[in-house]
Amino acid sequence: MAGSSFGDAFTITTFGESHGDAVGVIVDGVTPGVDIDEAYIQIQMDRRKPGQSSVTSPRKEYDIVHILSGVYEGKTTGTPLFMMMHNHDMRSEAYTDIQHSFRPGHADYTYLKKYGIRDHRGSGRASGRETAGRVAAGAVARKLLERRGVSIAAYTLEIGGIRCDTFDEQEIERNAVRACDPLAAVAMVQRIEALAAAGNSCGGIVECRIRGVAAGIGEPVFDKIDAELAKAMLSIGAIKGIEFGAGFDAARMLGSEHNDQMDAAGFLTNHSGGIIGGISTGEEIIFRVAVKPTSSISLPQQTVRVDGEAQSISTVGRHDPCICPRIVPVVEAMACLVLEDQFKRQAALHDQ
Amino acid sequence: MAGSSFGDAFTITTFGESHGDAVGVIVDGVTPGVDIDEAYIQIQMDRRKPGQSSVTSPRKEYDIVHILSGVYEGKTTGTPLFMMMHNHDMRSEAYTDIQHSFRPGHADYTYLKKYGIRDHRGSGRASGRETAGRVAAGAVARKLLERRGVSIAAYTLEIGGIRCDTFDEQEIERNAVRACDPLAAVAMVQRIEALAAAGNSCGGIVECRIRGVAAGIGEPVFDKIDAELAKAMLSIGAIKGIEFGAGFDAARMLGSEHNDQMDAAGFLTNHSGGIIGGISTGEEIIFRVAVKPTSSISLPQQTVRVDGEAQSISTVGRHDPCICPRIVPVVEAMACLVLEDQFKRQAALHDQ
Amino acid sequence: MAGSSFGDAFTITTFGESHGDAVGVIVDGVTPGVDIDEAYIQIQMDRRKPGQSSVTSPRKEYDIVHILSGVYEGKTTGTPLFMMMHNHDMRSEAYTDIQHSFRPGHADYTYLKKYGIRDHRGSGRASGRETAGRVAAGAVARKLLERRGVSIAAYTLEIGGIRCDTFDEQEIERNAVRACDPLAAVAMVQRIEALAAAGNSCGGIVECRIRGVAAGIGEPVFDKIDAELAKAMLSIGAIKGIEFGAGFDAARMLGSEHNDQMDAAGFLTNHSGGIIGGISTGEEIIFRVAVKPTSSISLPQQTVRVDGEAQSISTVGRHDPCICPRIVPVVEAMACLVLEDQFKRQAALHDQ
Amino acid sequence: MAGSSFGDAFTITTFGESHGDAVGVIVDGVTPGVDIDEAYIQIQMDRRKPGQSSVTSPRKEYDIVHILSGVYEGKTTGTPLFMMMHNHDMRSEAYTDIQHSFRPGHADYTYLKKYGIRDHRGSGRASGRETAGRVAAGAVARKLLERRGVSIAAYTLEIGGIRCDTFDEQEIERNAVRACDPLAAVAMVQRIEALAAAGNSCGGIVECRIRGVAAGIGEPVFDKIDAELAKAMLSIGAIKGIEFGAGFDAARMLGSEHNDQMDAAGFLTNHSGGIIGGISTGEEIIFRVAVKPTSSISLPQQTVRVDGEAQSISTVGRHDPCICPRIVPVVEAMACLVLEDQFKRQAALHDQ
Repeated sequence: MAGSSFGDAFTITTFGESHGDAVGVIVDGVTPGVDIDEAYIQIQMDRRKPGQSSVTSPRKEYDIVHILSGVYEGKTTGTPLFMMMHNHDMRSEAYTDIQHSFRPGHADYTYLKKYGIRDHRGSGRASGRETAGRVAAGAVARKLLERRGVSIAAYTLEIGGIRCDTFDEQEIERNAVRACDPLAAVAMVQRIEALAAAGNSCGGIVECRIRGVAAGIGEPVFDKIDAELAKAMLSIGAIKGIEFGAGFDAARMLGSEHNDQMDAAGFLTNHSGGIIGGISTGEEIIFRVAVKPTSSISLPQQTVRVDGEAQSISTVGRHDPCICPRIVPVVEAMACLVLEDQFKRQAALHDQ
Repeated sequence: MAGSSFGDAFTITTFGESHGDAVGVIVDGVTPGVDIDEAYIQIQMDRRKPGQSSVTSPRKEYDIVHILSGVYEGKTTGTPLFMMMHNHDMRSEAYTDIQHSFRPGHADYTYLKKYGIRDHRGSGRASGRETAGRVAAGAVARKLLERRGVSIAAYTLEIGGIRCDTFDEQEIERNAVRACDPLAAVAMVQRIEALAAAGNSCGGIVECRIRGVAAGIGEPVFDKIDAELAKAMLSIGAIKGIEFGAGFDAARMLGSEHNDQMDAAGFLTNHSGGIIGGISTGEEIIFRVAVKPTSSISLPQQTVRVDGEAQSISTVGRHDPCICPRIVPVVEAMACLVLEDQFKRQAALHDQ
Repeated sequence: MAGSSFGDAFTITTFGESHGDAVGVIVDGVTPGVDIDEAYIQIQMDRRKPGQSSVTSPRKEYDIVHILSGVYEGKTTGTPLFMMMHNHDMRSEAYTDIQHSFRPGHADYTYLKKYGIRDHRGSGRASGRETAGRVAAGAVARKLLERRGVSIAAYTLEIGGIRCDTFDEQEIERNAVRACDPLAAVAMVQRIEALAAAGNSCGGIVECRIRGVAAGIGEPVFDKIDAELAKAMLSIGAIKGIEFGAGFDAARMLGSEHNDQMDAAGFLTNHSGGIIGGISTGEEIIFRVAVKPTSSISLPQQTVRVDGEAQSISTVGRHDPCICPRIVPVVEAMACLVLEDQFKRQAALHDQ
Repeated sequence: MAGSSFGDAFTITTFGESHGDAVGVIVDGVTPGVDIDEAYIQIQMDRRKPGQSSVTSPRKEYDIVHILSGVYEGKTTGTPLFMMMHNHDMRSEAYTDIQHSFRPGHADYTYLKKYGIRDHRGSGRASGRETAGRVAAGAVARKLLERRGVSIAAYTLEIGGIRCDTFDEQEIERNAVRACDPLAAVAMVQRIEALAAAGNSCGGIVECRIRGVAAGIGEPVFDKIDAELAKAMLSIGAIKGIEFGAGFDAARMLGSEHNDQMDAAGFLTNHSGGIIGGISTGEEIIFRVAVKPTSSISLPQQTVRVDGEAQSISTVGRHDPCICPRIVPVVEAMACLVLEDQFKRQAALHDQ
């Protein structure tokens, strides 16, 4: 396949460019008879959309989700669920000046090399806007996971070198950066605003916790839960790394330190991050992703034109100085898609 | 699918347990008319097999590869290439005492929870032995990539906290730990031997560099090169994390620092690790994986029996005190599989 | 997957119910840089839409195709091509009386048994309306095939027992039943009109010829060209059988009669239908499909209500007394999808 | 994929050429904890193997199946089940004289055109021998279907123009041609023997009945049960057509005749062949396939050499004058694979 579909038993296929008419997704394999409405999906769409706060892009996209098939009288029918969000605030003219240049950090150069043609307006298909369809589909998966007693929560752990010292899940949606530590959140916002004022951007680390997954879920070998989660996360443009449980710290631990020992009450530790051999241990599944600083900055940078001529460029437009706050719901959505898919595959394996 | 196949245009399907009769792989989608023989495949098998040095498991597996189909008179026919390695040094009795217990860090518990049944001998399907088939298939992909001018080299960057200070590709195969720094290699070997003597184990970091991939290779959105590489690497049992280019350090960089600027001669830096928007930039593709310490240690650990009763366990048997040296060829093999698959998908996209 | 996607290297995913807001399709894997516009797609949409003649359903669906992504400035970008057709003439109330009954020959009963819920309006997802997305996608494949010098033409060979005696490709689009014999066409129209007046319906046979496919195209074993074409055709609701070349007559031929012998100029016959071992021979690919009589008839029939109570039913509504004329473009579309997919897979296999 | 895998939730991948070392199959997605042994698989292998009677090829292939993984202590483990059959009676020298020629009716020409290289010995991968792996895998699916109360039986309905007048399932395995009518069987054997003596061959029709499938099984749209069965059957080399229920006769029926009406007791007829809208109706699933006459005949035929020079050829070797008796277990095996896959996909859809 050409890469716009994800999932095996629970599958999504997305379409749409940043400055096209719309973006959307077809979700196939949805359990029939489940209550789903646009309001439920919209909750997640609103968490991803721009213009939420002082630290996100001021671009005005309402991201109103429309369900055009697969739901009848408020219930899923088991047939493909199609959702679409129209694009509104497209100022393509703002991109005409970079039509013939490659913006540093953007996929302008690689897309042109791959396709020999590109829709330069707002990054086209490479735009973060493509993730709107993922979030809508993820909300459907989230609904199914709720029925299984599974909950998924991502949050900002670190931004611009400022790391959370405490973990309070209640605080996450209460601050603009979706951090789990309210004090760190204040410092993060100040850091982002200062960088934005300076025409710069910063990155961070997002952590995700998945609870309620009983032991025994996950395909072995190539489609391990951690393997699928890793693919899902690295398929998000700004993410450059992922680690599970102790992650890279495990490289400096001894076997006697890293092994999660057990007693009659269960595991004594969770260095594995809730996954061993690609299968859930029943402990909390926990992973962290590295988010690169936003590529679009207004500071002058060296680049070349499509014709090869060197030039200096300053990316104008309305961008996020740090994408962590808005990537949180995307991380959750992709995690929901992976988990629901794994549950359904488990059901297929054991069915008879 | 149930997770034993990998790849889209270039596909492999593996089978086999640690203590079964054999392990093997079917490779489908192989370019016809290519010179392939068992000797070429065996070179990679020998790099993965146990018993290579003082720091690897003494288990004697010759891992002699047999090509049973898909090659005729020394050339690939384009039909499925089947390769099999018989298991030899199976001391299943060594596992009878742990038949009713869960070894800490092993997939004993999760496999039983998933399947309701398990082949406890030598970890069964969860054994690193399953990677033998991957390495054989990866060698076939490597041969095709050589024709494309692509080279792939992985090596140990860090073991037990000892990190390489220099990078000398020629040194990699000259030392027992496959490190890129001969001095660090000496210290690593001493560290491993000391831990082995103490019945303990350690982890490390393996780095991989892919050269010769022109700009424009890689599916966008879900099947980005980095997404597929991340899945491929996390599908290797001992790997707990992956990062591309600047990786987790990118989380603490500014946009002005991380963006790879360009001039007429090309990119000035490679913080992206050779991949932007999931597509190759033409620069070296570089990534690192976190390898956990080997789970099998002889130090006593707390665990429970299958019947739930707590007990102390010491994993006897012949194990690797650090798996990094033997995981290097597996990392390369999986990277070869991902790259060849992406090249073939690119050909399909552009064909007409 | 849940069955709404088709193809491997060239993939389509459809959505939409008969009486939902819209039907549509995402086409992934489209060669970039190809001229495509809505007018070109509309030509095929118009051949499929109802209300074309006295022998098709009077339902008024304009089936205006809208391309919402994947095309920029008149050329394909290589990213997913999304096309949508809004539903207009929905008289759902006409279906309220059959909301609690199973119409004979329709999928009302099987859908309810499978999903436990159904959108009864106009057959929902089981409606022939779902094929609108296939025809739009098929037109894209047709454009790519034209560049390869491949042409695909289907036509009505037989309706209600009346069979074409001659084959004149120019006549196909000149008569209301898309028959290859103008005289037979007149008799077919009379037969259909008489049956329609009597509240009955009839079936027929549609034949398809694919020209310009050089020898050597087609995956072997499970994905043979004929296997994929058979799946594609049987996936069309009204089709109950398919045969290639001599087809069922081959069952009564001798090897000496059926084998296609060759001389220096090529094959002497084409009993194989242009496919041997699942791979094209270079001869014309030819197959025939059996089309069942339309299930919707106004004559009273026995059926049961959802509650199990027996009743008599007369299917009111606006239906096609014979679907052959409108199934012709659907057969062509599916054939185009299979062929383009096979060409792209061939390119992937041989690429290096 | 390159076409050597089949199935979605229950997947098989085959390898092997006629005159290679072995043929085999990996079955992935097998329900764990199911009793499976080689003896059970061998029953089906013996029905497919050559040398069973006076009307089958005298080639001596014992087709002894070996299970090398996926079964532990007599039970499936849920991991890939690998089965292999070694090739024994290979008289490759018998093929040296046709190394440079294309045998009429065989895939010699198309394989060379596709791959640019071919293993000419015994048709290589295009040989019916490849179906040995399918039959072994089908036996595993059959075991799972037995647990569901599903039974599948195929038989010869017609050979060389001689058609069965009666249907006695008990007779099928009692006669050499696997016909459902003992009297017709006698005539069929005589017909085949006469043709064999004359160096010729004949085709026939095989019918298959699937019982015990409740209403509601089958994916809609592209992966309908009949679509998957059609693909499965046409993927068998000698099969040139398939029809369900009334099949091609439906083309000449009226809607009032073809529609399966219902009363409180269920369906009054089964013209649909047990499938409507791609989903099972609960009635018997019934289909027929057209089997072409065996391509290998000793009568002289015209062909060309690889160098293009015309010549006369007589295919020597040990062949089946009619493949129907041996294709029966292959048809059953493929039907088993399709059904088990559809059941597992249904489980995934409805899970939770």
